[in-house]
Amino acid sequence: MNYKMMGRFIGHILVVETIFMIPALLISLFKKEKMAGIGFAASIGIILFFALLLIVFSKGSKKSFKAKEGLVCVSISWIVMSLLGCLPFYISREIPSYVNALFETVSGFTTTGASILSDIEGLSMGIIYWRSFTHWLGGMGVLVFVLAVGASGESSKGFTMHLLRAESPGPQVAKLVPKMKKTAEILYIIYVILTIINILFLLLGNMPLFDAVCTAFGTAGTGGFGIKNDSIAGYSPYIQNVCTVFMLLFGVNFSCYYMLLIRQFTSVLKDEELRFYLATVLGSIVLITLNVRGYYDTLGETIRHVAFQVSSIVTTTGFATTDFDLWPSFSKAIIIGLMLIGASAGSTGGGFKCARVLIIIKSLRRNLRRAISPQKVQVVRINDRMIDEKVLENTNAYLSAYVLIIFMSFILVSMDSFSVTTNITAVISCFNNIGPGLEAVGPTCNFGNYSILSKLVLIVDMLAGRLEIFPILILFSRSTWGISTRRFRIWR
Amino acid sequence: MNYKMMGRFIGHILVVETIFMIPALLISLFKKEKMAGIGFAASIGIILFFALLLIVFSKGSKKSFKAKEGLVCVSISWIVMSLLGCLPFYISREIPSYVNALFETVSGFTTTGASILSDIEGLSMGIIYWRSFTHWLGGMGVLVFVLAVGASGESSKGFTMHLLRAESPGPQVAKLVPKMKKTAEILYIIYVILTIINILFLLLGNMPLFDAVCTAFGTAGTGGFGIKNDSIAGYSPYIQNVCTVFMLLFGVNFSCYYMLLIRQFTSVLKDEELRFYLATVLGSIVLITLNVRGYYDTLGETIRHVAFQVSSIVTTTGFATTDFDLWPSFSKAIIIGLMLIGASAGSTGGGFKCARVLIIIKSLRRNLRRAISPQKVQVVRINDRMIDEKVLENTNAYLSAYVLIIFMSFILVSMDSFSVTTNITAVISCFNNIGPGLEAVGPTCNFGNYSILSKLVLIVDMLAGRLEIFPILILFSRSTWGISTRRFRIWR
Repeated sequence: MNYKMMGRFIGHILVVETIFMIPALLISLFKKEKMAGIGFAASIGIILFFALLLIVFSKGSKKSFKAKEGLVCVSISWIVMSLLGCLPFYISREIPSYVNALFETVSGFTTTGASILSDIEGLSMGIIYWRSFTHWLGGMGVLVFVLAVGASGESSKGFTMHLLRAESPGPQVAKLVPKMKKTAEILYIIYVILTIINILFLLLGNMPLFDAVCTAFGTAGTGGFGIKNDSIAGYSPYIQNVCTVFMLLFGVNFSCYYMLLIRQFTSVLKDEELRFYLATVLGSIVLITLNVRGYYDTLGETIRHVAFQVSSIVTTTGFATTDFDLWPSFSKAIIIGLMLIGASAGSTGGGFKCARVLIIIKSLRRNLRRAISPQKVQVVRINDRMIDEKVLENTNAYLSAYVLIIFMSFILVSMDSFSVTTNITAVISCFNNIGPGLEAVGPTCNFGNYSILSKLVLIVDMLAGRLEIFPILILFSRSTWGISTRRFRIWR
Repeated sequence: MNYKMMGRFIGHILVVETIFMIPALLISLFKKEKMAGIGFAASIGIILFFALLLIVFSKGSKKSFKAKEGLVCVSISWIVMSLLGCLPFYISREIPSYVNALFETVSGFTTTGASILSDIEGLSMGIIYWRSFTHWLGGMGVLVFVLAVGASGESSKGFTMHLLRAESPGPQVAKLVPKMKKTAEILYIIYVILTIINILFLLLGNMPLFDAVCTAFGTAGTGGFGIKNDSIAGYSPYIQNVCTVFMLLFGVNFSCYYMLLIRQFTSVLKDEELRFYLATVLGSIVLITLNVRGYYDTLGETIRHVAFQVSSIVTTTGFATTDFDLWPSFSKAIIIGLMLIGASAGSTGGGFKCARVLIIIKSLRRNLRRAISPQKVQVVRINDRMIDEKVLENTNAYLSAYVLIIFMSFILVSMDSFSVTTNITAVISCFNNIGPGLEAVGPTCNFGNYSILSKLVLIVDMLAGRLEIFPILILFSRSTWGISTRRFRIWR
């Protein structure tokens, strides 16, 4: 294991983290929020101390860097970033329990948006800003950011590639241009521009600047931390519709935007994942609207709430304008379905990802065709390009891991005596980085009542979901650490 | 499509079905149950008429028989067998609705044991006998039976193999001996002997002969139709324990029994699936016992109920001695877990099957190892034998289909306004051929209140579960029927 290179890289990540804490510190100072100010100042000091320690002690590392080290490096970065990133909440005493502060921070960075807080409006503005900003940073990925700005420009090429591959979402790495650093740059530029447009549209609806910035952070990262206790419900219909549109936009594969920029309009129109994504959204809106007709005064209001909620869930954002836990079973079933599907690959959204659903369905159809005519060679194509058998295999492995993790987490979380629906949707919601679930973790409730064990399980789920399982799973594998023990086993 | 050969084969199946109805007819006549007697007599007449029609009109078919025809033939046999096998219930007016009668029959043949009846004790004995017998027949498979007794001895070798492959459960065909017909024979002999031993043990506990035979049918087929309204709860602890042991025995891969017969004891002891199965059972019993301690008077009683319920669910039988819907969430979560895992491959039990879980876990670990050291060749082994990549691929495809079907069915069934937990467990329970679910379909309730649409969805689920998905899925594929239509599609 190339610990030195990993150490130096994590050191850089932490420096970046402290830089991003400065605006929150300034807000606290400006608003004269004493405890929050101390929280940020102390956190910046502590994190910088660790960062410098890591950087100094990791001088002179080997140049070679393996794939597994990329995976391990990504997951450890995220863990360290969360363990230290929650310090402002904890030190300022605004979230007095460390586990709760960690839960909130992981929920932020992983763009989940599940909260343990019952009163958000009671927080200081600096803290609210930092809470929302974690979404924005986690959405596109802090490692991608570090690569984009080239903070570790000295690193080897394999290093960059392994890291980007491990952090970027979807079954295939979206390499827009041959150079990885350039790809990271383009992604961040699109991200920043879309976020700014989002803020402008919110400001046009007379939303206060602070609210607009924080809401845009939550939307862009498809996070879902609101800054009001009732999420987006209290804002005007215009604001709600702006959120609906932008949530959907941030759930689109960013390579589509790049295609638009380089004027390849037809390949965007023909993109199968985009079509699948939009068809899912439209279909769900129609079905749920028919189902909840009569729950709201007018058809317009119904469509507004339904469109908002569908976009919020499928993009794994998690904002709410209405309590969908009160909707009828059919609508709830569709909501659960959307939770599992998730947004597009290469977007800031989480979930299983539309691209993977497509690959799974197509590879299943391939297997059926094989059973029907075994002699024919059958390949799986997406956008007229053949999908490599390795990608098919990995997608299937992803599904297995996905099912197993939901399954195990559900059983562990069930030790707290919430209902079956609460537990299963809590796990699905955290693992897919959504935020709200149903019943006791519904849109009007929070995760605060879960036990510490359950919170830790859900924290691991959120990280596993955001990093797409393997980087986290690999931490639990003995062969990663070179440990080989021969013990009694029930099966091999 | 070789329709003639399929027609003749289905004709034979139907003749066998009428032969098996004779004992039920005799019981009805003996007990002077007029309506039931008429029901069976009329049904036998109608079915024989169809059977002879099929046999006469299917004379002189081609000898060649393709894999897809095997799959189609199996699923159509099961559908026809159910459509006609439910006639006694319907004609006798004991189940006045045809859809309900069909649901009950499919539930019987697929060894699900989900019932639409609220009062079983009100049925006539002939009908109860037939209801329980469908479990026994469906458990090992009626096609396997037909092959074993050689009713279609004239058929080509490919025909036999394709059929057995389509009907027998598990990721690989358990070919005990080179000849398929001989394998089918051995399986049925073991099945009959174990059933007889089961009856004897029940009789030793002073169970009436009729009850013992019907209960053994339900146990052997891992079906779960009880003959009392409270399932097995009213019988003595001894009877309950006998059921526990025999449910577990029928959930073991029958090739293990064959190995015992030919004295290969070590290969049974080392069988990884058997170890996995027993470890799952034991682990669940321990965990649930700790969790429900205090729900029953003594530790002995607790263990008895827990062991019974764990065996009942993991083997997908579905008998009940206690209402596990009242257990705490953790126990319910384990129960749901057991529902999904299911029994061993090559047993009469349903579910995903232990062998597949093992393959999925091992192939996931293989993918992890690959990510850690990409240059090494990694293979998946079970019982020290390398698993073919095709089998791995099919098992992964099976998981995809499994997840997709549960997902789609859950959404369809949710149109009825039961709770999320009711709907999801109803689907899981039917699809895995278990019987009871939770809440409104819990052990003390039944499926009678679902709408006709939901019942039809669950019927398809039960058949898909019993036939392991592909034979049913293939019916919905255009290429099976040679239809190729070019239409507008959102994606290809």
